[in-house]
Parts: sequence; structure tokens; C-alpha cells
Amino acid sequence: MIKITFPDNSVKEFENGSTPLDIAKSLSNSLAKEVLSASFNGLEWDATRPINEDGKLVFYKWDDEQGKHTFRHSAAHLMAEALEQLYPGTKFGIGPALENGFYYDVELPDGKVITDEDFPAIEKKMMEIARGNHPYERKEISKQEALDFFNKKGDNYKAELISELEDGKITAYCQDGYTDLCRGPHLPNTGLIKAVKITSIAGAYWRGNENNKMLTRVYGVAFPKQKMLDEYLVLLEEAKKRDHRKIGKDMELFAFSPKVGQGLPLWLPKGTVLRETLTRFLAKIQKKYGYLQVITPHIGQKELYVTSGHYAKYGKDSFQPIHTPSEDEEFLLKPMNCPHHCEIYRLKPRSYKDLPLRLAEFGTVYRYEQSGELHGLTRVRSFTQDDAHLFVRADQIKEEFCKVIDIILYIFKILHFKEYTAQVSLRDPNNKDKYIGTDEHWDMAEKAIIEAATEKGLPTTVETGEAAFYGPKLDFMVKDALGRKWQLGTIQVDYNLPERFGLEYTGADDKKHRPIMIHRAPFGSLERFVAVLIENTEGKFPLWLTPTQAVVLPISEKFNEYAQKVSEILNDKDIRCEVDDRNEKIGRKIRDNETKHVPFMLIVGEKEAAENKVSVRKQGKTDLGAMTIDEFKAFIQGEVDKELHPEE
Amino acid sequence: MIKITFPDNSVKEFENGSTPLDIAKSLSNSLAKEVLSASFNGLEWDATRPINEDGKLVFYKWDDEQGKHTFRHSAAHLMAEALEQLYPGTKFGIGPALENGFYYDVELPDGKVITDEDFPAIEKKMMEIARGNHPYERKEISKQEALDFFNKKGDNYKAELISELEDGKITAYCQDGYTDLCRGPHLPNTGLIKAVKITSIAGAYWRGNENNKMLTRVYGVAFPKQKMLDEYLVLLEEAKKRDHRKIGKDMELFAFSPKVGQGLPLWLPKGTVLRETLTRFLAKIQKKYGYLQVITPHIGQKELYVTSGHYAKYGKDSFQPIHTPSEDEEFLLKPMNCPHHCEIYRLKPRSYKDLPLRLAEFGTVYRYEQSGELHGLTRVRSFTQDDAHLFVRADQIKEEFCKVIDIILYIFKILHFKEYTAQVSLRDPNNKDKYIGTDEHWDMAEKAIIEAATEKGLPTTVETGEAAFYGPKLDFMVKDALGRKWQLGTIQVDYNLPERFGLEYTGADDKKHRPIMIHRAPFGSLERFVAVLIENTEGKFPLWLTPTQAVVLPISEKFNEYAQKVSEILNDKDIRCEVDDRNEKIGRKIRDNETKHVPFMLIVGEKEAAENKVSVRKQGKTDLGAMTIDEFKAFIQGEVDKELHPEE
Repeated sequence: MIKITFPDNSVKEFENGSTPLDIAKSLSNSLAKEVLSASFNGLEWDATRPINEDGKLVFYKWDDEQGKHTFRHSAAHLMAEALEQLYPGTKFGIGPALENGFYYDVELPDGKVITDEDFPAIEKKMMEIARGNHPYERKEISKQEALDFFNKKGDNYKAELISELEDGKITAYCQDGYTDLCRGPHLPNTGLIKAVKITSIAGAYWRGNENNKMLTRVYGVAFPKQKMLDEYLVLLEEAKKRDHRKIGKDMELFAFSPKVGQGLPLWLPKGTVLRETLTRFLAKIQKKYGYLQVITPHIGQKELYVTSGHYAKYGKDSFQPIHTPSEDEEFLLKPMNCPHHCEIYRLKPRSYKDLPLRLAEFGTVYRYEQSGELHGLTRVRSFTQDDAHLFVRADQIKEEFCKVIDIILYIFKILHFKEYTAQVSLRDPNNKDKYIGTDEHWDMAEKAIIEAATEKGLPTTVETGEAAFYGPKLDFMVKDALGRKWQLGTIQVDYNLPERFGLEYTGADDKKHRPIMIHRAPFGSLERFVAVLIENTEGKFPLWLTPTQAVVLPISEKFNEYAQKVSEILNDKDIRCEVDDRNEKIGRKIRDNETKHVPFMLIVGEKEAAENKVSVRKQGKTDLGAMTIDEFKAFIQGEVDKELHPEE
Repeated sequence: MIKITFPDNSVKEFENGSTPLDIAKSLSNSLAKEVLSASFNGLEWDATRPINEDGKLVFYKWDDEQGKHTFRHSAAHLMAEALEQLYPGTKFGIGPALENGFYYDVELPDGKVITDEDFPAIEKKMMEIARGNHPYERKEISKQEALDFFNKKGDNYKAELISELEDGKITAYCQDGYTDLCRGPHLPNTGLIKAVKITSIAGAYWRGNENNKMLTRVYGVAFPKQKMLDEYLVLLEEAKKRDHRKIGKDMELFAFSPKVGQGLPLWLPKGTVLRETLTRFLAKIQKKYGYLQVITPHIGQKELYVTSGHYAKYGKDSFQPIHTPSEDEEFLLKPMNCPHHCEIYRLKPRSYKDLPLRLAEFGTVYRYEQSGELHGLTRVRSFTQDDAHLFVRADQIKEEFCKVIDIILYIFKILHFKEYTAQVSLRDPNNKDKYIGTDEHWDMAEKAIIEAATEKGLPTTVETGEAAFYGPKLDFMVKDALGRKWQLGTIQVDYNLPERFGLEYTGADDKKHRPIMIHRAPFGSLERFVAVLIENTEGKFPLWLTPTQAVVLPISEKFNEYAQKVSEILNDKDIRCEVDDRNEKIGRKIRDNETKHVPFMLIVGEKEAAENKVSVRKQGKTDLGAMTIDEFKAFIQGEVDKELHPEE
């Protein structure tokens, strides 16, 4: 018999050789139906793999990331089998699970090309095989066996992978007639896969190296229920409509120019208004919380990053040093603002009374990303962090965390991110030498963060071993309107940089102490945040934030001048107003501006001009009647106030 | 007889061989006393050099830059003679005139070092020689004679210079017993120099090359009247007090860190407030004038600057290209924003109705300067331009110039730069092939600029041949409180970049046309402008601009909390307020805050706290009595309004 310990710490005995699936069945039939894979003593484990010793068992279902991962990985094998059957002679590279699905890199037999039109046939073949309920069978094989098998089959990519593996640790999985080199785990059988969709194809160099052969990467998704696939496809359509790259282009918020360089966003006038409105919004909150804004250059001497340790860690993979034409100096584009802020801290002696010192900067940083990795505003080479560094005493960590949490929650509230979670990342207590800083400090900081998160009532998960080497942290994830998760907002403790820069303050005891640094960025970066906002709102930004708050529509050219005057008066009061003086019928103008999501349309004609009024129409067809310009001004300012101070 | 034409185009006849001084004497004795040098037919000419042909003659006096230049250059020779007499065996490098004085680079005889303590002896010796009234005599000599003379004397630096000169064009000047290689012109005699001062010494490599010997550079100033020297020395003292580097440090506006890099300013919290207030001020004006703000990255592909022509022209002397760790890309730190803005223009088709398109950016640019050239905020390696590029049709140039002039004059008015001049720089009509663009365009643009300057009533000088190769321009110089001139504000027409970037718009004629670009920056750069503002105001900024507008002074610790509340209420209304809660007597707090030039002190004690009031004291000891917080808020906002809308 073996003793199995479950996550709730209950222990039960089972026959030697029982599989997780056997164990699940003995507990409940409905559970067994849902088990996709498991972990045993911390190792990933097939649901059908026998257990021969005592240990801890966790079941993974579709609702668990691990369960989804196994499901998708098994679907990749299923697709590989389908491709092999449809295109005999296909060679296989790698086929991993992804966040939303899976892919397989394949070399198709000579002359064969897959196009969108082939997708239904592949899907059909996959479902045919799936319905066969073939078990995924795990086999431990020797390196030689593996090499022989794949070489014989002509799968030279697999052979190449095997040649790099350690003998005695190689496994393969077979389902139906298809065998793949794989660490697993996999599903009990193909029958669990009820719905599949091939989503796209792309070219991909073998092992990401452009000197290698270009393989065909086939992407797909798979689900345990047809309904889930249907919902996913609807979501996909919806996501396409909300793609920030599309909306950003349509609304002329930002653009890229191949001549300026990929991944380097150009913020167009309307995007700049949006970005600066966000910036001012946050700066105002931060001022209230005692932050001091600074501005530092976008380069620093290499020496600065040698001191900070960034050069040793990231130098090789970053934009390379900038040399001077004489004097042999070397500079780096700044990948982060912290070293500059440390230098500001060091400019004069600091006392315990000066702390916390909160230096904030909307600092644009530059990080090299391979061109294939770039994506709209979410993955760029230049981005502006809403950065701040809090230099604090150890006893101030908790209070400062509480304050930053307040700021982040206020932002979430104002921007209607109602669903969010927070993750506390702690160090691995069994590997303390991986981390910098004393036990005492770590314990204090970890306790402070957990207490702060608890006091603020955050829905929190705690992950041990996920801390950075320099300190524990708290990260926020938000769910957008489509239920997609985005990482936004981070608060990190840092014991490393104060040490490296030799930062000090004089304590109440008149002795020198080392301050602790807290890095924090509620938005993360303006680029990423704007992307998330666009996708979340479909470009329908709140009134206070939207680049154009009102548009004046003269009913004929005769009233263009009055329209212009109205616009100037409003703009002068910081109401962002435009005039639509195109030579179009008023109905057309209204329709066009509805499409552009302008919150208020101000229609002006004979009567309005005579009475110094505007006829106000709210986006979405509500007529608010005529108002004087002053009345409208007060009205819109009141609406903005309501948005920014929701509970008052 | 020779016919001499004077600047007023009058013509008179004089004896052959007459000198400018002879001619001046024949016109007026008082004029003759003032003539320091001359130009004859466009050549610089000694006042005592005979004229043997017809031509145009201009006299230069102390009030002319050329007159001052000759005076200072002659003083450099005088100092050289004094050094030779005091330190026989001294070798001479070069000794030019400077904007405010002159210097001479010398190699002192073995073992001799000059210190501050030697300055009076040098000055004394110079005045001794000056009083001898020795004429500066011009001699044309052959290359061989010159080499023989200086080699014999052991002046190897002079010999090196001569070896590079063309025979037949070499002149020397002698006064008293001293002979120097020199192109002249020089003063009639040493007696005109009535006051001298040795100001400083420095080390300087021969010919600026660090592989050469380090010479001693001796700096001095000289004047035709003792009173002028006295005034100059007072000014110097005053300028030292106003040095923006000193005030910037005292007020904690900005700083430099050797680790971040020289010439890369770090804007500290108070400096950031100052800078952002300036930025918002200008942005608000610009918005009114139809400017659209954009934000572009601080790097661009090398290709971008190859297209713009900047790489060919400046690449070698600039920060060198940034390479990527893979993909072989090359980027440059942006030295200007125009290429990025051209790329934004090119993002979509433009019509004549879309022009003028005014793209504005507070864009930080990076330009390499040698470390020896760096100076506070006026000469830096990174600076932020208040940049804009107006893309206009040819017929819009004048109106756009008028509007930019309006903006610049408004800024000058608000910031109390009462004395300013403008310079129109036109092309050299005899060298048209030096310039890009058609005759028609140049004529139109030059006419437009001159008309705009005239209509706006600018005190203007017109300089022919001073235009950039790409277009004519208008520059503004302001005089500060010490009478020093600073170049601020520039408006430049550009035919070059639209051509190079292939910019187009569709005209009313439905054909493609090329827009014209206007570059303009009213501040020039925020760094330089802040430096000038500091030196002009001695750090006493106007209320609307100063980083701290009010400080609350609790009369004892008991009222710290109320003081904090007052400060929060005011800050919330964008009044920049601090609390001085130091444990000091109220008298001391008032004195300290007077020194810091805080415009308003709000004293709070028992009575004020009870009545929700503050006792307002204006900087400079005016007591304004008690006000409620709301009253003070309205009062200070009124004061700011008065500053920003002076005539209303």
C-alpha cells in the first residue's frame, strides 16, 4: 500500500501502482471525469501513470493552469498525428502548449504548403482521431532506441533534440499510431478533446535561428466542450475588434514608422493628449501622497550600470554602448530609472527625518527586444514608466505599501477595472543564499507586505520562491472586459541597489543606516497601460480621459465662426473640444461623430448663435437640450468631477 | 588723389597714402580720437595703414564689435610684451581676442609658474609699456625672414605656425621692443589702453591636442577708460552672484552626477516644478495657436539621419551609433526632433486644407560636446527643445511668422525681457548655389519674414549671407538685467527636409506640392532658458513660475497639524505650498524664508487655527493681514492671473 497526502493534508492509503485517475475514481466518479493530469511529490505526473511510493498528490482539472496546459499539449500531439496522416513524410520540430492554445513546428513534405483552406481538413482529421479514445501512453526509452526510432522515421529535428538529452531520462508518448519525444504529462486519452480549431500558420526558424531552415508553425486551440470553443471564437472576434493596434490606428493615437524604427512608438496628437491626461492624473495623485517629480537623462555612463549591476546582468542582450567621438566615454541608453534616482539620493546627506523620500519620474526607458517579439504598444523597445522610487526606513515599508496600494486601487476604480487579484512573491526559505539582504530585513518586509495586502482587503495569492533576488514584491493583475488577464502595477522591495550605490541616512541614533528602496509603477508603463485601456474600453474612454470631449457641429457653414468661438471658449477652460466644419449635412456629422465615440456633440445654428447657446447631444442619442456655453462648461466639468470622485 | 566712399555713400578725395586716421582727422578731431581700426574695401585695416587706391572706408570705434576686437587683440600683444620683459625666455603660442577680453597661450621659462599673486605685477608692467604710447607697426615679411626671426628667438610655436603659411601673405606687428606674427589690424598705439586686468590662468594644450605640450593660458581684459574696467569688475561680481550654476545648486533646481555623466543635467524636484510650469505655460499658448503636441522616441534608425542629411554632416562628431545585440540594426540618439516629425507628416496623405500642420514636442535631444566646452545648463549634452515644426504652404509663411513672433513677444513680456533685438538672416545673393530651394521661394520667404518683423514692430537688423543653407531665419536676442545678451528664440524656414523626406500635399489644383517647414523654438531649450531666467532674476522667479509660492509657518509645534491642513488645501488647488515645521522660533523661520525668496509666508498660530485663517506676509516684509484660506487662495490666484495677463 502507498500513503497519499492530499492538498488539504488528509492522508489515505491506496494499492501500490494506483494511478491518479484510479485514486480520483475511488474518491468520486465526477472528480475522475475531470482529472486531466496531476503532480506527485512536486513532479508533473500523468493521470494514468502508476504511483509506487508514498507522497503528495495534486489533481489538475481544466480550471487549473496545469490542467489546461496538459490538455493543450496533448492536442498538439493530436494535431501532429493528423498532419502525419494527411501529409505523410512530415517532419516534426517542437510542439508546445501556449497560454491560449498550442502550436507545432513542422517541415511539410516537398512541395506541400498549408493554407487557411486546409484548416477544416486538419480539424476534421483531429476530431476523427480524438473520437477513437486512444490513450496517451508514456514510455521510458534509452537514448539509442530513441535515436534509432526517429532517425529511421526521418525525423531529423527530433534526432537532433535527442542527441542533446541525457540517457536514462528520455520518455516518449504514443497515441493511436503516433509516437513523439516528450516529457509529458499528457491526458488519459484523446477522447477528452471535444473541440479543436486551427487558428493560423506562420514561418519559424528551427530553434529560432535564422541560419536554420524555416519550418511551418501551425497554431491551434482545443477544448473539452464544443461550447467553450464557440465562446472562445466569439471572444476572439471581439478581441480582434478591440485590438489596440487597430483602434490606435483608427483613432490616430499612435503609429510606427519603419524609418524611425520598429517598436519605437510615435505618439500622435490625440494619443499624446490621452497619455498626458493619464500622466497628469497620476502626477496629481502622487503629489498628494508626497511624491517629488524629477527628470533625468535617457542615457547614463556605462559605469552607472556597472555599479547598479545591470550591465553585468543584461549588458550583452541590450542596446550596445554609445561611444563618443573623442575622450573615450561610453554611455548606455537607460533601461530603467533607478540608478539615476540613486544618484539623486546621493547628492546630499540624508537624515531619518527626510525619509521616506519619494522620487517619481515619467521616465522613458529603452530595452532591446527582437523584432519578432514586438507587438503594438504591449511589447516595445521604448516605453515610459510611471516610475517612482521610495527610499524608506525598514519600519516604513508597511505604511508605504499601504499607500501605494491605495493609489493603485484608486486608479483601478476610476478606470473601472473591477476584477483584480494581487500576488505576493516571497523568497524560497530553503534557498536563502539566492537572495541579497539579511533574514531580519526579509522577514520584516515580507510580513509588512502581507499585512498591508490583508489590511487593504486585496484578493491575494502568496507565491513562495517567486521573489526577485533583491526583495519581495506585490503584483497586480486585472481582468479586462473580455475576461483576459493583464499584469498591471507592481510594488517591489529592493535591498540590492541601496547596497550597490552605498546609500545612507543618519538615524535618530546618529549612526549611518542603509535605506531600503521600493520600486513601484501603478500603470507599469504608459504604453502598456494605454494598450490595455484601449482593449478594455474598445476606445470608448471615460470623459475625463478621452482626447476629444466635445465636438461642435455647425448646421451650416454660416455658423462655422460661432462654432469656432464656442470651441475656443471651451478649450480655454481645458475642455477638449473640436469643430466639425466639414461641408456635410448635420445628420451625417452626427452619425460620424457617434462612430468616433465623441461623448458630447454641440449642435449650433441660428437660434443657438443668437442666444449664445449650444444644443447638447450626448453620445448614444440622448438629447440634453440647449445650454449656454457657461452652463455646458459647468455641466461637463461636473461630469468629469463625478468620474474622478465617484463616491462624493 | 584717392576717392573714399563712406558708409552714408558720400565720397571725398584725399591724398594718396592717407591713413584712415589721417582721413578721420580731416573730418573731425573728436572722431579721430575714437577710431581704433577700420575696414577698407571689406578688408580689416589698421587705422594707421596707408590707403593707395579708391574704395569704401568704415571706421571702427569702441562701440563697434570690430573696434573692441582690435582693442583686445592689441592688449594681448601688450600682455605678451609684459610677460617677455618679466619672464625672459617665454615662448608664445596664440593670443586672440575674446568676446569679453583676450588671452595668450605661453610656455614660461623653466621652473617659472604664474599664480594669482603675479597678476598685479603683470598689470603694472602692461600699463608702464602702454603709457609709452608705442605705435603698433605693421610689417610685411617673407616666410624665410619670419622663420629666421622666430627660430632665432627660440619661439618654436610661432615657427610652427609660420611653416604652414603662404609666403607673400605674412605680416608681423611690432610695438616697443616686441614683435609678433599677426594678421592685424591693431590699434594706432599702446597709449589708447588705459586699464587692464589679468583675470585668470588655465592650462591649454598647444593647438588643443592633448598629445602636445600643456601651455599656460593667461586671460585678461582691457579698456579705453579706467571707469569701464571698474564697471566691468562690478558686473563680474554681480554676474558671479547670479551664476545659474551657483543659484541652481543653492535652490536645488538641478545637479550633475559624475557617475551619470558630465553635461547630463538631473532635474531635482524644485527644478522639475519650474521646468514643468514653463512647459505647461508654453503648451497652453501653443494650443491656442493650433499646435498639436506629439511625443517621439529619443532614438531613430541611422537610416533616418542618412535621409535627413544629419548623419553625413554631423555623424562623425556626434554620439556614435547604437548597435543591437542581434539583427544588425543601428540607431542614433536623436540630435533634433525634425526627422521624427517629418515621419509623422508622412503617415497619411495631406491636403492643402490640412496646412498649416503644427507639430510640437518638448523633445529631449542629445548632442556630443567636448567636456571642456560644457558649462552648467547653457552648454550641455542633453537638452529639451521647446520644438515645433510648422508644415506650411508658401503663401502661409508670413502669417505663421507673425504668429510665432506673437508667441515669442508674449513670453518676453510675461518674463520681463524688455530689451530685445531680432536678426533677419538672408542668403548671400552673390552665392546662390550655396543654398537649396528656388529663387522664387527664397524671395517669397525673405520678403515674408521682413514684412512680418516690420509689421510686428521688431527692432530688427538684417544680415545678408547669414541664412542657413536650407532657408532664411529670424533670431531673437534678449538683454538681461546685467545688460548681457543671450540668444533666445529662433524661427527658421527649411526647404531642405521636405525635399529629403519627399513630403507632399495635394493642392487646390489637385496636384502634388511640397510643403515648406518652419522650425521654431521660443525658449531655444528649457535648459538654456532656465539658466538665462536664473541669471536674469537672481533666482527670484515670478509668482506664477516659482517652485514654492507660499510657505506655512506654524508659530509652534502645536500648530503643525493646522499648517499641514492649510498646505494640503492650497496644494489641492494647484498652489505650490510647503510647511516649515522645523523646531525654530518664528522670527528665524521668517528670516530663512525671506532668504529663500518664497513670495508668501502664511503664519499660523492659536488665533488663525481657531478662525480657519492665515496671517499673510509678503516677501519683502509687507504684512497683508489675516485671510481665510479661501481668501488667500483667491488672492494668490488673482496675483498669478495679473502676471499672466498683464494688460487685462
